[in-house]
Amino acid sequence: MEKRGLLYEGKAKKIFATSEENVVWVQYKNSATAFNGEKKAEIEGKATLNNEISSFIFSKLREKGIQSHFIEKLSATEQLVRKVSIISLEVVTRNVIAGSLSKRLGIEEGTVLEEPIVELYYKDDDLGDPLITDEHVRVLKAASLEELAFLKKTALEINEFLKELFLSCGVKLIDFKLEFGKDETGSIMLADEISPDTCRLWDLDTNEKMDKDVFRRDLGSLTDAYKMILNRLRGESTHV
Amino acid sequence: MEKRGLLYEGKAKKIFATSEENVVWVQYKNSATAFNGEKKAEIEGKATLNNEISSFIFSKLREKGIQSHFIEKLSATEQLVRKVSIISLEVVTRNVIAGSLSKRLGIEEGTVLEEPIVELYYKDDDLGDPLITDEHVRVLKAASLEELAFLKKTALEINEFLKELFLSCGVKLIDFKLEFGKDETGSIMLADEISPDTCRLWDLDTNEKMDKDVFRRDLGSLTDAYKMILNRLRGESTHV
Repeated sequence: MEKRGLLYEGKAKKIFATSEENVVWVQYKNSATAFNGEKKAEIEGKATLNNEISSFIFSKLREKGIQSHFIEKLSATEQLVRKVSIISLEVVTRNVIAGSLSKRLGIEEGTVLEEPIVELYYKDDDLGDPLITDEHVRVLKAASLEELAFLKKTALEINEFLKELFLSCGVKLIDFKLEFGKDETGSIMLADEISPDTCRLWDLDTNEKMDKDVFRRDLGSLTDAYKMILNRLRGESTHV
Repeated sequence: MEKRGLLYEGKAKKIFATSEENVVWVQYKNSATAFNGEKKAEIEGKATLNNEISSFIFSKLREKGIQSHFIEKLSATEQLVRKVSIISLEVVTRNVIAGSLSKRLGIEEGTVLEEPIVELYYKDDDLGDPLITDEHVRVLKAASLEELAFLKKTALEINEFLKELFLSCGVKLIDFKLEFGKDETGSIMLADEISPDTCRLWDLDTNEKMDKDVFRRDLGSLTDAYKMILNRLRGESTHV
């Protein structure tokens, strides 16, 4: 497999073409951004950590029968993934109220939901990625009814798996964002990444934040937090 | 029926107790407010117009078998209504994209929806009445699943009726907000008001705005616009 020209540069990754039509080469970046790009920083080591964590999680999901665009990890900061066209929806699953939901509903951060909920946000930087309803999805033609049902069902399945995975290493999965894409045959699969950039992860015992909120809210070293997540996932550190 | 003490003063109405336990006396106010109370004015004649229009519409809905809290119009600015406990949801039905939906989805105001959509907003001034999803309604326990289905079904029925009613007098119903309440037996019914304060109404031929956007956007005389709506509903003026 040969790396070819840059196809797209996002906030956290660069995507390159390859010699294979339906495969792209992902280069993780050290950039951290929050609040729709208003807060920015370059953080040495972030690319490696997110690539390691996301590769680890996508491999585990594959073992459980949940397909994603992930093919293989190439290097510390690079992955090979299937080329997909990203669906313009951020699919957010929540187990505990935090962040924007806490503000929206006026309910204290940390309140445990009786059942997980799935929310949809319209992926559009100019609009600030607004919350939308199922009916808005129809208006936007962002996904068909069937596709929407698949996204929600898959998000809840992934939630069950990730909750367990993190719990087993002493971490509470508060919420997380998924993106999905369509491959050349039109088949939908999980895409983007799953990492502390896209999850809220709290220490099971202390509720210490181990995710991008460390950066958003200036709570300390982002790389220390992400390293802790990676080590725990690898079983290299206990949570006690 | 005897008027008793003030129970509640809202932005647009005062509610008084009556000698009858389950009946309250509504006094419409001349206050106009927009943007969650940030823009305010006293507009002579507004109370009369909204009371007339809302009484007219609630009476028409009753003839069609759609019950509301409305009992009777008492005077130019007063109504008698059933006492209900208001459900904390604003139920917005849209036929054409306008206002906040145009901003949220980045779609031009005036775009006709293929089918009407129903949105829910959480009635909470401190939170700015945020858009919420069906799952948020469950989290807030604002309504049961059954109740929510009833609210949506009723909103769409009222939409069909109102669309026809306004069309017959040369007015396009763009969108409107409903509130519902529970009476002492727990039965849910339409409440609040239906008026140019709670509907977007555009002239069929010219798209001239004949609703609260005249006030929100400083487009001219609010009372002229509301008078036109009342006269058209009463059949006292044609739209040609």
